[in-house]
Amino acid sequence: MNGAGNLMDFLDEPFPDVGTYEDFHTIDWLREKSRDTDRHRKITSKSKESLWELIKSLLDAWSGWVVMLLIGLLSGTLAGVIDLAVDWMTDLKEGVCLSAFWYSHEQCCWTSNETTFDDRDKCPQWQKWAELMTGHAEGAGAYVLNYFLYVLWALLFSFLAVSLVRVFAPYACGSGIPEIKTILSGFIIRGYLGKWTLLIKTVTLVLAVSSGLSLGKEGPLVHVACCCGNLFCSLFSKYSKNEGKRREVLSAAAAAGVSVAFGAPIGGVLFSLEEVSYYFPLKTLWRSFFAALVAAFTLRSINPFGNSRLVLFYVEYHTPWKTTQLGKYPVLEVIAVTGITAVLAFPNPYTRRSTSELISELFNDCGALESSQLCDYINNPNMSRPVDDIPDRPAGPGVYNALWQLALALIFKIVITIFTFGMKIPSGLFIPSMAVGAIAGRIVGIAVEQMAYHHHDWIIFKNWCRPGADCVTPGLYAMVGAAACLGGVTRMTVSLVVIMFELTGGLEYIVPLMAAAVTSKWVADAFGKEGIYESHIQLNGYPYLDVRDEFTHRTLATDVMRPRRNDPPLAVLTQDSTTVEDVEALIKDTDYNGFPVVVSRESERLIGFVQRRDLTLAIKNARQKQDGVVSSSVVYFTEDAPQLPASNPQPLKLRRILNLSPFTVTDHTPMETVVDIFRKLGLRQCLVTRSGRLLGIITKKDVLRHMAQMMNQDPESIMFN
Amino acid sequence: MNGAGNLMDFLDEPFPDVGTYEDFHTIDWLREKSRDTDRHRKITSKSKESLWELIKSLLDAWSGWVVMLLIGLLSGTLAGVIDLAVDWMTDLKEGVCLSAFWYSHEQCCWTSNETTFDDRDKCPQWQKWAELMTGHAEGAGAYVLNYFLYVLWALLFSFLAVSLVRVFAPYACGSGIPEIKTILSGFIIRGYLGKWTLLIKTVTLVLAVSSGLSLGKEGPLVHVACCCGNLFCSLFSKYSKNEGKRREVLSAAAAAGVSVAFGAPIGGVLFSLEEVSYYFPLKTLWRSFFAALVAAFTLRSINPFGNSRLVLFYVEYHTPWKTTQLGKYPVLEVIAVTGITAVLAFPNPYTRRSTSELISELFNDCGALESSQLCDYINNPNMSRPVDDIPDRPAGPGVYNALWQLALALIFKIVITIFTFGMKIPSGLFIPSMAVGAIAGRIVGIAVEQMAYHHHDWIIFKNWCRPGADCVTPGLYAMVGAAACLGGVTRMTVSLVVIMFELTGGLEYIVPLMAAAVTSKWVADAFGKEGIYESHIQLNGYPYLDVRDEFTHRTLATDVMRPRRNDPPLAVLTQDSTTVEDVEALIKDTDYNGFPVVVSRESERLIGFVQRRDLTLAIKNARQKQDGVVSSSVVYFTEDAPQLPASNPQPLKLRRILNLSPFTVTDHTPMETVVDIFRKLGLRQCLVTRSGRLLGIITKKDVLRHMAQMMNQDPESIMFN
Repeated sequence: MNGAGNLMDFLDEPFPDVGTYEDFHTIDWLREKSRDTDRHRKITSKSKESLWELIKSLLDAWSGWVVMLLIGLLSGTLAGVIDLAVDWMTDLKEGVCLSAFWYSHEQCCWTSNETTFDDRDKCPQWQKWAELMTGHAEGAGAYVLNYFLYVLWALLFSFLAVSLVRVFAPYACGSGIPEIKTILSGFIIRGYLGKWTLLIKTVTLVLAVSSGLSLGKEGPLVHVACCCGNLFCSLFSKYSKNEGKRREVLSAAAAAGVSVAFGAPIGGVLFSLEEVSYYFPLKTLWRSFFAALVAAFTLRSINPFGNSRLVLFYVEYHTPWKTTQLGKYPVLEVIAVTGITAVLAFPNPYTRRSTSELISELFNDCGALESSQLCDYINNPNMSRPVDDIPDRPAGPGVYNALWQLALALIFKIVITIFTFGMKIPSGLFIPSMAVGAIAGRIVGIAVEQMAYHHHDWIIFKNWCRPGADCVTPGLYAMVGAAACLGGVTRMTVSLVVIMFELTGGLEYIVPLMAAAVTSKWVADAFGKEGIYESHIQLNGYPYLDVRDEFTHRTLATDVMRPRRNDPPLAVLTQDSTTVEDVEALIKDTDYNGFPVVVSRESERLIGFVQRRDLTLAIKNARQKQDGVVSSSVVYFTEDAPQLPASNPQPLKLRRILNLSPFTVTDHTPMETVVDIFRKLGLRQCLVTRSGRLLGIITKKDVLRHMAQMMNQDPESIMFN
Repeated sequence: MNGAGNLMDFLDEPFPDVGTYEDFHTIDWLREKSRDTDRHRKITSKSKESLWELIKSLLDAWSGWVVMLLIGLLSGTLAGVIDLAVDWMTDLKEGVCLSAFWYSHEQCCWTSNETTFDDRDKCPQWQKWAELMTGHAEGAGAYVLNYFLYVLWALLFSFLAVSLVRVFAPYACGSGIPEIKTILSGFIIRGYLGKWTLLIKTVTLVLAVSSGLSLGKEGPLVHVACCCGNLFCSLFSKYSKNEGKRREVLSAAAAAGVSVAFGAPIGGVLFSLEEVSYYFPLKTLWRSFFAALVAAFTLRSINPFGNSRLVLFYVEYHTPWKTTQLGKYPVLEVIAVTGITAVLAFPNPYTRRSTSELISELFNDCGALESSQLCDYINNPNMSRPVDDIPDRPAGPGVYNALWQLALALIFKIVITIFTFGMKIPSGLFIPSMAVGAIAGRIVGIAVEQMAYHHHDWIIFKNWCRPGADCVTPGLYAMVGAAACLGGVTRMTVSLVVIMFELTGGLEYIVPLMAAAVTSKWVADAFGKEGIYESHIQLNGYPYLDVRDEFTHRTLATDVMRPRRNDPPLAVLTQDSTTVEDVEALIKDTDYNGFPVVVSRESERLIGFVQRRDLTLAIKNARQKQDGVVSSSVVYFTEDAPQLPASNPQPLKLRRILNLSPFTVTDHTPMETVVDIFRKLGLRQCLVTRSGRLLGIITKKDVLRHMAQMMNQDPESIMFN
């Protein structure tokens, strides 16, 4: 760690890359933290020197809040723009606004002054394609033409989306949450949160959602917000040069993303805490809170839906790890799935509309003025009950019709989301699960309601329903169903409930929602402990050390460390007897990320650890700039090197890049403790000693491999690369 | 750690206390975790042996959820009983119900069938004391008599409360949250969560709140819930024998406590996470969630207030570290403060009523039917505006009168809570802060509202208030004020907002509430980083390693470890050359909690660490039961001990109590890393080595002392004992 401290002085010299990491490598959290403390200390001590330095130090102290403000503003704006664009393009599949083509259906009829229409969806300015092209609004011909153009637009949108992703930013596909989880746990995937990804993901997200595929924008919005976070990190060296601090910002950005996706700022903070983040100190909690607040406020100011409460949802996807033969041809796959989706979705009113509207309708209760099919109850005037006393009314033909359509929609949604999953376009995960749950919930709700009407003398209904009072609310069943389904997929609990009630405003339903969340978690856990994101991480083989897996096997550090029994001895450096040549050979022959430094090969007493990357750079630099350093120069990690005559090969002093406080455990340490240490301290590697003698090394990958082995999984299948 | 593993086998023999801790000592989290994993492993392997063992293992796996269920049920019930009792006793100060003396004022008038009364507070069954004793309900004489009896009852209640606490359970005083925080961080305070504390705290809490003192029941309810948690831990050896697991249960119990205190289950979970807990894995999050759910559900079933939404608040206290001369005479102090409170509170209607009612009235908006003084607006029929359009009406004399009374109440509340703080009775912290904030907020709200009325042509109001629309809501100002004040006192953010909106149902006010929470945190942090609980912990000198303090000084482990430069050398044991006599002398001469074991005094190579308590017990046991172990026997920590003839003193083999994986850092490790390791791994001590040679030891107290020194505080003043 002190090595890291010295590293900073070293960094002042022209060594731009010392202390950074390579792509697809894991960061060392302790080292990053230590580097940040050094930086902070330097700024604090400088701030006493002049007013300018004082101002700089104040700016530095507030830069965290500034970054949060910027993230909130940008992600709120992007979410608003995406919402407006999706709205317009979804309607474009059906028709166009004559007064201004950039108006969506709703805006078109809104601005039309003839608001006396009972059905606000109908106004002369808005024309369906068939009407516009042939002049006939009704009839079989118009229906077929509309149907055809609907499918055509959908195919065009999805083709554009998949092509853009393929050509410009392959990282823009999927929801991005599994990768963000992995990145937040300390893995480096360069470009995953880059500017190109941000741009392409925003554009293709609009296209993909508008195409009507069974996918949604909530997960991708988290990715978009994290890209914003990464973008603003580059403005401040505090964040751009420190991978640990950068991840604190990204955690907060994830919260802002969920905040704008659902209009749920608190839910966003909790989602980041419960589901995405790895290292989440209280400071990050407060900042996430602020970012989520600003983002929600910005989005509300844009007010894309004309109501100032919430941003409704669009479809996302569900059910993992199916890959079709088509998977090898991503563009063809997307076109095929879009075609099937569009062809099958159009005839059923519950699948034609956007999933957000569907969910919204399913959640709603039937008021007296509701024109929906779902509210076609028979009012019985003989019983002189108030009109809005729904539960005790028998269902009319519309409700039975709706039931059948809902059942078909349920099957369609489940099947199509399975196939939509894994396609190479931006796609979210929340909404298809919610839609499936909401449909199932509503069906159950209506069934119970009708049972209560026809059999109100049954014992369960007798105590439950007092005459004349509400006793069954099908909308509540839909809400609880949506929560339960989403909870089963993601295994969220607290954040799920908070998102649900921020989304619906149904604060009084906390208890049923909590019960649904706990039950669905129990049931889902009985089938397997992993939520969809963890499964996705495993499927991709990212080196992610899940905090939830409990390690309960009785193995010791000595069983996991390398070298194993028949392996060649550990590659070590000695503090004062290795030559530059030897070091270069070692670097060439091995691909380890670092090497322990010992007093001598005989005593094997550990004095420190040196990173491969730093070693390579230091030797390269010394060979170029330092006179007398040649292949036969001796590398010294000690405090002093002997004074040699100028004619001899000059010693190369490298104590500055030596980490003098490497993390060590004894060979008797149980692996459960080692796993705990790796998780909590975010280590990359740990050295194993016995009575001060170096025995071996354990890396994060060794730990992951061992855990997989203990769970009878193939250890190689789970590793990245 | 492996030592801990072996310890378990050892524990099967009659050593009841091996592996436990003494009072006022810190636990070793890693060791507790390791012991639990061992226990779990044993049960899992046994479960394959027979059906009975399988059932036992399933029971063990579910015991966590069972404990949560029990905690939820008991704490919900206790909260309900406390609410009912407080309700009754608060009213008892004013009068009695003739139809049944155990009815509170509200219940009394509720059951009376004459519900036609406009004012539901007036019914013939409920008689004030003066009316009951003299027959006169009105007049100066009746007023004085009522006043006198009010004060008398208050004095009686508070005298009973302070006496009970003093005699039976001194730990029952205060809110208990600072101590619970300390306990959850790993400190042992025996009896603090015991059965007596539970019983006495419940009873005296009712007495203290009923006496009308400026204190509240929310904090103490957290203490009560934690006592319930501790009680149910004793039912399962999994929790009663493991201090780490016990703390997981206590974290969840704290969530249940807040859940019933405010009727805010989600807020409770977040409070436990943000404010109280130290080690809060996701598993505990889910269990807390469940416990909070059950507790809220139980309380709702009891339904103490007849509305099924929320449990309103009672007063709590505020503003720390003032102690009066009276502090030395706790009973006298309580009586005096109660007397002053009662005498001053009675004449002002805003201080006479319970603070929960006050806050509730301040939060409320003025509807058309509101009879409160605060709603005495002048309706202007000429302007033909709707009746409930409040903001544009001028205030009547009642409002101005109320303003003065509120201002006086504000001063009174602030002053009296300062003095109420620290008295030896159960007292909470949330409500007086909320009351102060709500009063201030309402005053500001009314002022702004009247400004908007009289100067609606000012620019700020012009854009803000459209004619005929609501533009200023004084109730919202009160709510935001309460949140801001509470946030400033406790420095909560997310949990504060969630509690506030669970409490008020005001989901649409998330944005102003969040803004208030963030602002008050910023302002308060400018005066000092500590919230009230941390200040209280420091005041009491508990060894609490706060996760929020950032340690940024450039000191190394070598600067903190003991022995210091001129100290005697470190007390160590050797693995095979110390006699029983030597060990006993070492135990007698020092008071260290444990001793490092080295290969030999010359090489100083560390092999393990042994706890003082285990060593004492092992030697005592061996002397009693093992033949041939005498003072001159050699203690062996090695794997094998030499075979000696029976006539010689027999060797004492103690490898089983040796921790073979003590935690080590090098002397070059920066203290910021050491602090991080202590926090995250919950260590008691850490050994310092250089190249495998033992140099010294750092304990948790050394770390705390060093941190205090670095912050220029007196290191001795902050230490317990």
